[in-house]
Amino acid sequence: MIERLALIGVGMIGGSLALALRQGGGCREIIGYDRDRASLERAVELGIVDRYETSACAAVHSADAIVLATPVGAVEGVCRALRGCLDENALLTDVGSVKGGVVRSVETGLGRLPPNFVPGHPIAGKERSGVEAASADLFIGRRIILTPLPGTTSEARARVRQLWERAGGVVEEMGVEHHDEVLAATSHLPHLLAFALVGSLSGLGERDEIFRYAAGGFRDFTRIASSDPVMWRDVCLSNRDAILDVLGHFERDLHALSESIAAGDGERLQELFQRAKQSRDRFNH
Amino acid sequence: MIERLALIGVGMIGGSLALALRQGGGCREIIGYDRDRASLERAVELGIVDRYETSACAAVHSADAIVLATPVGAVEGVCRALRGCLDENALLTDVGSVKGGVVRSVETGLGRLPPNFVPGHPIAGKERSGVEAASADLFIGRRIILTPLPGTTSEARARVRQLWERAGGVVEEMGVEHHDEVLAATSHLPHLLAFALVGSLSGLGERDEIFRYAAGGFRDFTRIASSDPVMWRDVCLSNRDAILDVLGHFERDLHALSESIAAGDGERLQELFQRAKQSRDRFNH
Repeated sequence: MIERLALIGVGMIGGSLALALRQGGGCREIIGYDRDRASLERAVELGIVDRYETSACAAVHSADAIVLATPVGAVEGVCRALRGCLDENALLTDVGSVKGGVVRSVETGLGRLPPNFVPGHPIAGKERSGVEAASADLFIGRRIILTPLPGTTSEARARVRQLWERAGGVVEEMGVEHHDEVLAATSHLPHLLAFALVGSLSGLGERDEIFRYAAGGFRDFTRIASSDPVMWRDVCLSNRDAILDVLGHFERDLHALSESIAAGDGERLQELFQRAKQSRDRFNH
Repeated sequence: MIERLALIGVGMIGGSLALALRQGGGCREIIGYDRDRASLERAVELGIVDRYETSACAAVHSADAIVLATPVGAVEGVCRALRGCLDENALLTDVGSVKGGVVRSVETGLGRLPPNFVPGHPIAGKERSGVEAASADLFIGRRIILTPLPGTTSEARARVRQLWERAGGVVEEMGVEHHDEVLAATSHLPHLLAFALVGSLSGLGERDEIFRYAAGGFRDFTRIASSDPVMWRDVCLSNRDAILDVLGHFERDLHALSESIAAGDGERLQELFQRAKQSRDRFNH
């Protein structure tokens, strides 16, 4: 049980965690901080936080757990603001889609890596962002990846695990670098392709007509292009190497496909599509 | 009202049209032909066709309407088999995702373009293929694009329109070439990207682990990679030029995105994502 949780960044993910912890009885009091005052007021109205503070430092005062739930690019600045305010015993975790970049930002911002810091990433989301989109059931049955650091205490690991389990998540652990490689492939690359496709089609000129004839497949395929641009900018910047690696791999594969089409190589095309279908069908089961 | 409809190719799309026409009272009798005997037997069991023939020529005998619903690559062979069997007055239409290639195949196969031929394409589908996946409500409220040819009679146009309206579709007309350009962008390209992404990730080695951490966005994004490989091979081969055009455009845009990531150009990335999000959000409404 957490007595007082400080939620730094009151958006869709942070708000959902707060709601889930309240419902799961995992937390007695939640204090919010966000640079956007309207989000804080709305969070109080929606019963997501008990009250808010207008500085991060005030928000973490006597908190026994702190969750960083800002976009990844804001973590360093927030941590800088928290220098000197952080209780040595307070649990510290985050929800960022990139772990290496967040670990560097926390270290730079705080000037050290606290032994109670357990980086985390819930594999859950929706296209809508902001506190209004928060929902208590977002994490139920979803994987939560924790990437404890060499200096992280086992007690902090256990407590962050418990926090997420109370929110309904299924917790796993892996290394920071491995997390960033896996997520570059399964999440960051698909988002980039969806943004790029919609962007590319928008540039074709007859945009409205083109979207008019788009069917369900296109709708599903591009849903993630409605995701938060600032969050995804930050993901690209902070997981640059892993993303460029998997993106380069994909660009080469796509170009080979293009060459098979140009060559009219039906056998090769069918083989490629068949293999992809088999993988995708397996993933469904 | 159609007295006798010959359905050439008894798969998901053709089967759905047959079921919809039965329910809508648009057709008295449906005769099936398919090169796969098991599909024909199953189509009789499922009440999709009244009976079947084991040659295309026998199936179109005294039919007043013929629907070609094979994969696009099989149209030429089927039409060759129909030479000399086709009633001059019979309505002829198809359901292919590519129109230029189908028109060429019909002309080559039959040796001419009959004035009762109205190429058509229902913008509807699902990932599952085969007669088992047929459903009567597939076309309800969906756009059906007809691409009548210069020599097509206005009576044939009106009758094919009526046929689709009876199946629940919303019929529009456009030119063959324009259809193929629009569909290359909104359907063929997204399918290729989904196939390429799943294929590319499958090649990364740690396949099972990678798919294990994939979330809902990935699931939606790659759903269309479960589509029928033969159908998509045929689409690539018969709409090659339009696909290569839009694919080349996309490859250039994707590479520019990759360069923005490599350069750490956050401003540019946010602008790209914002623009894509705006387009996608507009498409939702």
